[in-house]
Amino acid sequence: MPIITFLTDFGTADGYVAEMKGVLLTELPSAVIVDVAHDIPPHDLDAARLTIARYWRRFPRGTVHLAVVDPGVGSARAAIAVESEGRFLVGPDNGLLSPALLIPAARAVRLDIPTQASATFHGRDVFAPAAARLAMGTDLTALGAEHPTPVIRRTPEPQRGPTGELVGQVLTIDRFGNAVTNLVGMRGASVVAEGRELPLKRTYSDLDPGQAGAIVGSTGLIEIVVREGRASDVLSLARGSRVWLR
Amino acid sequence: MPIITFLTDFGTADGYVAEMKGVLLTELPSAVIVDVAHDIPPHDLDAARLTIARYWRRFPRGTVHLAVVDPGVGSARAAIAVESEGRFLVGPDNGLLSPALLIPAARAVRLDIPTQASATFHGRDVFAPAAARLAMGTDLTALGAEHPTPVIRRTPEPQRGPTGELVGQVLTIDRFGNAVTNLVGMRGASVVAEGRELPLKRTYSDLDPGQAGAIVGSTGLIEIVVREGRASDVLSLARGSRVWLR
Amino acid sequence: MPIITFLTDFGTADGYVAEMKGVLLTELPSAVIVDVAHDIPPHDLDAARLTIARYWRRFPRGTVHLAVVDPGVGSARAAIAVESEGRFLVGPDNGLLSPALLIPAARAVRLDIPTQASATFHGRDVFAPAAARLAMGTDLTALGAEHPTPVIRRTPEPQRGPTGELVGQVLTIDRFGNAVTNLVGMRGASVVAEGRELPLKRTYSDLDPGQAGAIVGSTGLIEIVVREGRASDVLSLARGSRVWLR
Repeated sequence: MPIITFLTDFGTADGYVAEMKGVLLTELPSAVIVDVAHDIPPHDLDAARLTIARYWRRFPRGTVHLAVVDPGVGSARAAIAVESEGRFLVGPDNGLLSPALLIPAARAVRLDIPTQASATFHGRDVFAPAAARLAMGTDLTALGAEHPTPVIRRTPEPQRGPTGELVGQVLTIDRFGNAVTNLVGMRGASVVAEGRELPLKRTYSDLDPGQAGAIVGSTGLIEIVVREGRASDVLSLARGSRVWLR
Repeated sequence: MPIITFLTDFGTADGYVAEMKGVLLTELPSAVIVDVAHDIPPHDLDAARLTIARYWRRFPRGTVHLAVVDPGVGSARAAIAVESEGRFLVGPDNGLLSPALLIPAARAVRLDIPTQASATFHGRDVFAPAAARLAMGTDLTALGAEHPTPVIRRTPEPQRGPTGELVGQVLTIDRFGNAVTNLVGMRGASVVAEGRELPLKRTYSDLDPGQAGAIVGSTGLIEIVVREGRASDVLSLARGSRVWLR
Repeated sequence: MPIITFLTDFGTADGYVAEMKGVLLTELPSAVIVDVAHDIPPHDLDAARLTIARYWRRFPRGTVHLAVVDPGVGSARAAIAVESEGRFLVGPDNGLLSPALLIPAARAVRLDIPTQASATFHGRDVFAPAAARLAMGTDLTALGAEHPTPVIRRTPEPQRGPTGELVGQVLTIDRFGNAVTNLVGMRGASVVAEGRELPLKRTYSDLDPGQAGAIVGSTGLIEIVVREGRASDVLSLARGSRVWLR
């Protein structure tokens, strides 16, 4: 059965997500809809992009990932579908789908916008129908013309500081208050954040309760954490905060 | 496979929704449960009713919509099941299901309340079992006696003002801070809200960042919006705020 | 089709839940994933345990309940799978799964932790794969060695006060502000909380709007409620608040 995963910043209470599910199941009653998240902060493309980077390749080949965070809906921005490493992605051409587009063999097509489509809800009138068609097995190229230069948003790379050390930054704060950085974990390292040197530990319980430290998170990036606490609050960290690798 | 959509104001953390899913899948293991929303504000019948109006006809014929926002649980209010335009709805008789009941050919029956049913959780003991039976293909009339006068809650209609202009109101504020009104969109119109005349635009990006305007939303109703902002905050709009069509 | 229910304290926006769904569906594409809740307060084992107590036996035999609230991830705490009353449960050995473990015939095994497992995300690398294997029909004993003494967390029992009356406590506050106690409901009783004697009523609508009272909730325990209000706010009740049965 075809799997369609589903991420938006719409929340669920207003019913926009439900309308899209209705379209998906009307087009393809056997679709297996897998909710990813609908509580992405409104219009937060970078939060959504980092989340997509986490999961898009964890699903089986053939999965269709429907993702709509779309502040430019109705403008000249393209609507696209992507095929990359055997998975499909559908959403606005605003950088949201970059994790899949950055794979060299990725292909993108530009979706037609029907004249009767709502100018403010392409999720329902453009993206959900395209996702259903891909889940049915329709070829990517049947959905629109090749779109050779999709918008790419990149995760910032660490920089070299004046004395050769790596200077990174906080990419996101997760639900636990952990600060995920763009520094790749390595043995024997420590991290400096907000003037404090934090030892690199294997897991939370290698810290004392309330102690701050750094761990290598589940994607290989260093996270700044406080055991049984919120590192973002304790250390005043936010997206963009600088961190140094020692 | 039979689709059962599911809306409540229960939240998910307390496990009430999970208990109901367990009942549905025990009665009908092949049921496809589609979460709509469980974060309806507690007891907010009008928010839930407007959400149901959005999605109930977007799903295929045969879909069962289970919806429980039920401040009067255990009182004399009836428990009902409805058939309307080929879809089924199950919930309390408190106006929640009005969008489907207002269709002329709609039929409603009154569900029996088993004596062992909890007086505070008809969702689990009355509504979920009825939804499962409808999803199995049981005829509506097998679920209870005809219920000829269900409770109807209506969306307020715009009124004519002293100089003939249409006076509407804000029906709801969505997750983005957009104020959805009861005014139907029309070419060349503008909207006055909180003393400001707002031009009718096609979509958000026809406004400057931070600018307020009006757009025709995806159901044809005028919404007051701020590009990259929250109209409800910027213009101090809330449910019931008056708006004028020019 | 095999049902896997899914509870965490991860939230959904960060994508950890999506990664686990990807693992489940990669291992077992026919799995039916049923979201229970991902908004358990971070690290709140007791809230999650009480929620699990509500739903685990409501699902059909053969259901696999995947539950991850795991502040000790990566430490010496065991990872376990449990078979109890025909259902399976997978999660950390920290008391979370106590509702099923307290059944006399329950059996638990200790899951192997692969050397390549992330020290901070056993949900993805240990629990999801084990849940998929159980849902495939793999025998419990094939997943690991018997784990004879799992950690148990118990709901506190009411105590006898100096004059023989039962003294209970508030176990949890639900989304509606109802205070669920550990006192079992009985006819003719009243409850004293925060110095006020509250009559035992059948349901909310037996109270006047704004009035406080007690009802027997849907699991048989007494709840302190305010009609159309939040008892936790009106009566200043929190988890652990003392209540007396009269």
